[in-house]
Amino acid sequence: MQSMPRSMSNTREVQKIITVFLLVLVSHLLKAQEPAKIISSVFDEALTDRTAYNNLEYLCKHTKGRIAGSPAAEKAIEYARQALINAGADTVWLQKVPVPHWVRGNEKCSVKSSIHGKKDLSITALGLSVGTTEEGITAKIIEVHDFEELKTLGLKSIQGKIVFFNRPFDNKLINSFSAYGGAVNQRTMGPSEASKYGAIAVIVRSMTQSLDKFPHTGVTRYADGVNKIPAVAVSTLDAELLSQWLKTDSSLTIHLLSTCKNYPDAWSYNVIGEVYGSLKPHEYITVGGHLDAWDIAEGAVDDGGGCVQAIETIRIYKKLGIKPKRTVRAVLFMNEEMTATGGKTYAEEAKNKGEVHYAALESDRGVMSPRGFSFDADSTKLEKLRSLTSWFEPYNIRDFDKGGGGSDIAPLKALGALQIGYIPDSQRYFWYHHSANDTFEQVNIRELQMGSAAIASLIYLLDLFDL
Amino acid sequence: MQSMPRSMSNTREVQKIITVFLLVLVSHLLKAQEPAKIISSVFDEALTDRTAYNNLEYLCKHTKGRIAGSPAAEKAIEYARQALINAGADTVWLQKVPVPHWVRGNEKCSVKSSIHGKKDLSITALGLSVGTTEEGITAKIIEVHDFEELKTLGLKSIQGKIVFFNRPFDNKLINSFSAYGGAVNQRTMGPSEASKYGAIAVIVRSMTQSLDKFPHTGVTRYADGVNKIPAVAVSTLDAELLSQWLKTDSSLTIHLLSTCKNYPDAWSYNVIGEVYGSLKPHEYITVGGHLDAWDIAEGAVDDGGGCVQAIETIRIYKKLGIKPKRTVRAVLFMNEEMTATGGKTYAEEAKNKGEVHYAALESDRGVMSPRGFSFDADSTKLEKLRSLTSWFEPYNIRDFDKGGGGSDIAPLKALGALQIGYIPDSQRYFWYHHSANDTFEQVNIRELQMGSAAIASLIYLLDLFDL
Repeated sequence: MQSMPRSMSNTREVQKIITVFLLVLVSHLLKAQEPAKIISSVFDEALTDRTAYNNLEYLCKHTKGRIAGSPAAEKAIEYARQALINAGADTVWLQKVPVPHWVRGNEKCSVKSSIHGKKDLSITALGLSVGTTEEGITAKIIEVHDFEELKTLGLKSIQGKIVFFNRPFDNKLINSFSAYGGAVNQRTMGPSEASKYGAIAVIVRSMTQSLDKFPHTGVTRYADGVNKIPAVAVSTLDAELLSQWLKTDSSLTIHLLSTCKNYPDAWSYNVIGEVYGSLKPHEYITVGGHLDAWDIAEGAVDDGGGCVQAIETIRIYKKLGIKPKRTVRAVLFMNEEMTATGGKTYAEEAKNKGEVHYAALESDRGVMSPRGFSFDADSTKLEKLRSLTSWFEPYNIRDFDKGGGGSDIAPLKALGALQIGYIPDSQRYFWYHHSANDTFEQVNIRELQMGSAAIASLIYLLDLFDL
Repeated sequence: MQSMPRSMSNTREVQKIITVFLLVLVSHLLKAQEPAKIISSVFDEALTDRTAYNNLEYLCKHTKGRIAGSPAAEKAIEYARQALINAGADTVWLQKVPVPHWVRGNEKCSVKSSIHGKKDLSITALGLSVGTTEEGITAKIIEVHDFEELKTLGLKSIQGKIVFFNRPFDNKLINSFSAYGGAVNQRTMGPSEASKYGAIAVIVRSMTQSLDKFPHTGVTRYADGVNKIPAVAVSTLDAELLSQWLKTDSSLTIHLLSTCKNYPDAWSYNVIGEVYGSLKPHEYITVGGHLDAWDIAEGAVDDGGGCVQAIETIRIYKKLGIKPKRTVRAVLFMNEEMTATGGKTYAEEAKNKGEVHYAALESDRGVMSPRGFSFDADSTKLEKLRSLTSWFEPYNIRDFDKGGGGSDIAPLKALGALQIGYIPDSQRYFWYHHSANDTFEQVNIRELQMGSAAIASLIYLLDLFDL
């Protein structure tokens, strides 16, 4: 082999070094760009595909009122199972869950005043509440705003009466969920508390800031040992009217009929679909919503939307060939609304199997335009998580705040799973929540799609960067 | 006078110094807290008062279709004037504005195919468009997506036909206004462009991402010298159908009737209310929306909401006793939708009077939940403005971005007024925009209220800190 002149050899060496340097540089740049590109493709896919919206329409229009234990819930389970298969999940299965079996009956409520006349009130029985007799109850009514007032009034004022809890949402609170949190004990514990003082039934102002005719249901919980009394929610407009009439006629009588019934527990299912992890298949990231919805609602906002977003994570990953390191599970929990046994069962089985649960995200705060996520994390961890916000800048998703995940994934916390809540804008949520106003038509396809993309992107980044 | 022991004197001196120091400290702390307190009281007031919502209901339900030059617009002017007086404005007046006078006629459109049969299409004439004869037009139709394609097709393919512009919004764009910007030239310039190649009318796909039955109108502008041809928008669902039918039957015929007419210009008014400045009464900050709305709409989202938010700024300042240094003007502009003469007249008069215009904010992007503001400012100025974001943290309003103000306040830019756009969430906006779907019911009271509070707070801070 002929020896090259020294200068030429040097030139080649330098060229070689430059070439290697450039290759390394380009590969680094590509690597840095890759997540941005993948997130961009996730948004493109979510925003140009109607599968999630069509899935939601089916759940709303064909499995309306899918409260745990109902035939509609069974139909929703079968639909969701098929939707996960269609989404391309590597595996799909049903997880058996014990659920209460509560069935609404006839409902009627009217108020009679010697001054104001008679008026039917728009009511709905609270979930798990006991019913009246077939003839209903007729009694005087007393307006109360909190449990302190109830205590002050005491047995002598309450006994034999219907207690009307009428503390509204505090409209000054910016986050609607805080306003809900400040009022909801009237519904969950009010019947129990009123019963202690001899009340024979409870009417609760609906849990919403809206002034309208929709009564909003929701679960009530009787404390151990109390006499279980019938409990219903009344629309906010009728609550206002009742309060108005009471101001000038304290001897109003109410006739209340609610023949709902509790039956023995039944069996139902969580619906689960997975994309297998490419590196750590035995570590799990859960993305969930709850499949059950109140019997009077189509359950679009609460929480069909969360379910179809979970399914969409699977669909998008499979469509785009995104291979997470860990196994990503879409879990459609059953029975969030009454006793949350879906979430409990899921965590129990995970614990029994010794599964490693890395993180869990729940979408159960509606499907309005995405604002961001809440993380149940200390400040150090939160700071790390906030490093991800830059990826979301192009999508105007900026809120990475401290906060909870959701009731279905809460039992996974004991297993070490980071708790994440999907946070859409909260202002409209309680207009729909637990009422006949929670319909498919209330969901905007783009707001739903933006949320799906945000969720799929966050899970991808958490997994990629091991955050 | 008995002399004090030295130590006691010293102690008193020290006490005095400490007292003064504490007083200064407290006064500084109070001063720093004051804006936070005032903003908090602005939000409290906005979120617990229904005046703006009630004003919006009136504008929607009693002055529906208030396009400039219409009797409904006259009624809206009188209502807005009274609403500003009720809000407590120091002065309220009307500013005369020349406006076009365009009136919709009978409208009907159907498609006939030898293969597919016959179908009525859901259409609406474009604003300022010319009409057909009373018998209407019957002609073949040709689908076109942009002006390049139109040029390529040329006179031989276009002449004597109806051009159907059918380029949809790009759903991949995150900001809905960007998607609108990418499609709207079909409506504004399409009729002119098509006319150049001998088209006899234009049908434009409605400017929305939604797939529904509502046709969306909007202004079209004929270029000088072109033959003015009738122009209508068709609902997106019917646009999809037309396109589908054309794929298998290129000899479809359309019958189009639109007997709208342009009349001689008329006079109308901007409605203006002020809170006098306490220190610089001759410097102005304008807060505006536009009072006119398309004749087929209630004009809740576009732009009754912006109007009632401007009125609300006045009401909140007067109710809370906020005294801005500069004069704050609520301006309800007339005729934004057709030729924007309200904004032009306002700026012209300001210039003629030598008024100093410090800043101007427009709310004309809907009244969904507030995300923030856009500022037409260079990076140095924007950085300064961003120092205000900390005041908005408690209200989850985080977006202070570069961007425009709005078409009504744009002419004030030449006078040096900082241009500010109010930015609510954009995803749902084009579901309503310029269509019969823009109704009062589409507005959520809390989203509206949050926006009013955000606007009133920003103006207060800009004025306070001279930003």
